[in-house]
Amino acid sequence: MKPRFITFEGSEGCGKTTQIALLTDWLKQRGETVICLREPGGTPLGEVIRHLLKHDPAGQNMSAESELLLFTSSRAEIVRKVIRPALTASQWVICDRFHDSTTVYQGIARGLDLDSVSAINNFALGNTLPSLTLFLDLDPEESRKRMLRRVRPLGESDRMESEPPEFYEKVINGYRQLANNEPQRVKRIDANGDKNVVFTRILTEVQHAFSGQLD
Amino acid sequence: MKPRFITFEGSEGCGKTTQIALLTDWLKQRGETVICLREPGGTPLGEVIRHLLKHDPAGQNMSAESELLLFTSSRAEIVRKVIRPALTASQWVICDRFHDSTTVYQGIARGLDLDSVSAINNFALGNTLPSLTLFLDLDPEESRKRMLRRVRPLGESDRMESEPPEFYEKVINGYRQLANNEPQRVKRIDANGDKNVVFTRILTEVQHAFSGQLD
Repeated sequence: MKPRFITFEGSEGCGKTTQIALLTDWLKQRGETVICLREPGGTPLGEVIRHLLKHDPAGQNMSAESELLLFTSSRAEIVRKVIRPALTASQWVICDRFHDSTTVYQGIARGLDLDSVSAINNFALGNTLPSLTLFLDLDPEESRKRMLRRVRPLGESDRMESEPPEFYEKVINGYRQLANNEPQRVKRIDANGDKNVVFTRILTEVQHAFSGQLD
Repeated sequence: MKPRFITFEGSEGCGKTTQIALLTDWLKQRGETVICLREPGGTPLGEVIRHLLKHDPAGQNMSAESELLLFTSSRAEIVRKVIRPALTASQWVICDRFHDSTTVYQGIARGLDLDSVSAINNFALGNTLPSLTLFLDLDPEESRKRMLRRVRPLGESDRMESEPPEFYEKVINGYRQLANNEPQRVKRIDANGDKNVVFTRILTEVQHAFSGQLD
């Protein structure tokens, strides 16, 4: 049986949160147990790392290398403490960002050496790879507009969301490249349009990837 | 000119702190500028990571992979923010533990894949290697005795110092292996005996490694 492990990827504002909620509901209505996780985070260690990456002044202007190693430290922990036990128990694991985010954001967009990024990702994952990765491909301009509309509590600015427009283009092109390189695992989903229309596109991929495992 | 970068390595209780103080004094008396650093730590980011690794309950029972990635994240930061600028300014940098600790503690003693450890170390360092590494080789039994005699403030137990005796033997054997593999850089110093006797052994290696750079 294929591990029931799905990751969602894409730029900020691409609709991951909405689509994850829709898929989770759909699976639960069929009697499945679903664990939804966010990266970085999801373990006591991971939540401290998340804070350090996003909001702690000590994390301001950290080097790209330190950033990557923090992301992967959080990931190594969630893989071993949460994801593997859940998959062993035949539960569904849906992850909002996973190792592809590291490849795309730190490797492709920030320009770190891709062989090193790959080696570090493999070390953190240790063969626990998603069976299906849904890349929500939204027009970069629309993605940036949606992100700027987001209302955040006062003082809760997010270091990862203050990059120039070129950065978002690199991110989206990076994901498109991944989808070309690993077409079996990474499925590009047109994320433009109504959320229910986007969800039917996602469902088609899920049902295809897990055919025989979903009644 | 050889970068004036010296690291001290060895098991807990081997006398690193004392010897670093003696070497720093010796260099300062000769008019040199010396920066002493400890690992993990030494930057705002690194100090948060240090706390997480040593004292934060969120770090209890973290996976060996997460631990390694946290150590190297702290190191990537100190290399770029502190060590490189100091070396460029011809200052001396003395580091209490560096990448060899990761190889020995996480790689050799905890049994993580050594090729991965090496790849991650290289990524964090990016060619900033010590010119000289002094491995203070103390009898494992003596090392453990000294460590147990250490007085710590109440509640300040240290996760890294609560390993069984076999672990310390693996650590010391790991360092001996490194000294054999990289005899040009890693010098084994007999750390048994009076601190001033040990210091003369260290000085011999320092003067040899930096001959022509020390008047």
